[in-house]
Amino acid sequence: MRALCWDGSSLRLTERPLPAPDADTAVVRVQLAGVCSTDRELTRGYTGFRGVLGHEFVGTVEAGPAAWRGRRVVGEINFSCGRCPTCSAGLRRHCPTRRVMGIVAADGAFADYVAVPVANLHAVPDAVADDAAVFIEPLAAAFEILDQVQVEPGLPALVLGDGKLGLLVGQVLAHAGARVLVVGKHDDKLAILRRRGIDTMRLDRWQPARVPLVVEASGSAGAFAVAVAATAPRGTLVLKSTVAERAPHDLAALVIDEITVVGSRCGPFAPALAALAEGLVDVRSLIAARYGLADGVEALRQAAAPGMLKVLIDAS
Amino acid sequence: MRALCWDGSSLRLTERPLPAPDADTAVVRVQLAGVCSTDRELTRGYTGFRGVLGHEFVGTVEAGPAAWRGRRVVGEINFSCGRCPTCSAGLRRHCPTRRVMGIVAADGAFADYVAVPVANLHAVPDAVADDAAVFIEPLAAAFEILDQVQVEPGLPALVLGDGKLGLLVGQVLAHAGARVLVVGKHDDKLAILRRRGIDTMRLDRWQPARVPLVVEASGSAGAFAVAVAATAPRGTLVLKSTVAERAPHDLAALVIDEITVVGSRCGPFAPALAALAEGLVDVRSLIAARYGLADGVEALRQAAAPGMLKVLIDAS
Repeated sequence: MRALCWDGSSLRLTERPLPAPDADTAVVRVQLAGVCSTDRELTRGYTGFRGVLGHEFVGTVEAGPAAWRGRRVVGEINFSCGRCPTCSAGLRRHCPTRRVMGIVAADGAFADYVAVPVANLHAVPDAVADDAAVFIEPLAAAFEILDQVQVEPGLPALVLGDGKLGLLVGQVLAHAGARVLVVGKHDDKLAILRRRGIDTMRLDRWQPARVPLVVEASGSAGAFAVAVAATAPRGTLVLKSTVAERAPHDLAALVIDEITVVGSRCGPFAPALAALAEGLVDVRSLIAARYGLADGVEALRQAAAPGMLKVLIDAS
Repeated sequence: MRALCWDGSSLRLTERPLPAPDADTAVVRVQLAGVCSTDRELTRGYTGFRGVLGHEFVGTVEAGPAAWRGRRVVGEINFSCGRCPTCSAGLRRHCPTRRVMGIVAADGAFADYVAVPVANLHAVPDAVADDAAVFIEPLAAAFEILDQVQVEPGLPALVLGDGKLGLLVGQVLAHAGARVLVVGKHDDKLAILRRRGIDTMRLDRWQPARVPLVVEASGSAGAFAVAVAATAPRGTLVLKSTVAERAPHDLAALVIDEITVVGSRCGPFAPALAALAEGLVDVRSLIAARYGLADGVEALRQAAAPGMLKVLIDAS
């Protein structure tokens, strides 16, 4: 099969053997895959990963347990052991020995086929088209915030960043009833939210005011200080960006204003799929470009351009 | 009256006019005051404060509203307006226009007398001696953690630091039912906790294991990374130190392990006073030295020595 591989120094479309199914593992024929900023980080050395990239996908189970064969699926990306104390405590996404699809010790979905533990599969409702379902992983990451933070109706919330994740987080918080303002740099991206009735502001026109909930989704190391300054005393700042660089941060402000900082990573697929099925979140407006798998290297190059929204890779 | 003043460049015992009482302000005759690490930070430029230092005290109301006259009191240090939205929301300690005794725009307690808003006064129960009551402010800061974090009985908790605050936090968490380990550098300080049945470990012998609750109370900028690494996935890290320096911190670990960081500052006096009255916390073992107010400059010099526990100033 074809697969987009990172070998530690270069990214290439290569021929790879088909993954093998077993009693716990399905082999999924990939239809669409999405490029994430993490993919670029991986080609800069993040996690030291080598193998097939890609962790956002929708496809059809081609081999594996009979109950799943032929079904259209998405898959959670953390492959956990299911038996350790962390897994037993319901925190499978934090299993200390987990592999992570296309990120840590498990081949990813920028390929014709990808192997996924059946415990990680979710059937995609008919109401959700492929080019919406392919957003399930980042959308679930946005829904993770609702699992971690109490969002009361009317709660003033600020989202910093109008990239892919910021646009999803803004919609999910608004759907949960928060009074959301998304601050970003790009009129065209912010317009996607305004069409859904969500307040937006260009960063250069923004007058910071402190609110009880702030989500840092800009992916910029320098944004942390801006986010802290915008969080009200005793408020909550959710960090969604895994910025690899170490920046000097003033943590005293967290103590003085008793701010709670919540690290937030992968999230639950079920509510995200339900939101897609009910049309509560607009994801298709985030699609910036589509490439065939044969042009995968170019797809990742384009996705790395500043300000780029979602680049999809069509493996069908 | 005598007062220990910081004028922006030097610390001196000076003569100052007596503070004036009014309908909302009591004048307290100071008996004992405690030196806090913050006092040293103030003489290094923290907050730009100039005036009488000192925010830990016990004394007797000498002038002011009749209901308070003659009573032995301690006082909360945040002088809030009581009317703004923050105060109305019950967050008086975060009032944006607050003055803070001996720290921001309000004279402190290293003096014969100190002015305190009556809204901030707490009567000291007879069962609490002066040299215990003088610990109320840092002890309340330790109790603040219980207001911010759910501490279930048996919860494994790690306290980093065996300084004044670490010793108080260790005791308060143990009192709340947590299974506490306090890690520090000083055998003699850790022994105070061991005498109360609290587990301790010397830092150089400690084998870090990840636990769901970590309190960083070491006051060292470098300890943040150690504290993060010791916090279990989805766990909580409480920051108690206002370290002024900006250090390079890797915030990605917070996101990957979905750690919650809780900044924690001043706390509620009532439960702290009750704990002192019931003898649930040993504070007197933390007293390292006592000086008369006339020797206040020397008291602060001694308090700044590395590893020093509580230095008291006797103004009686």
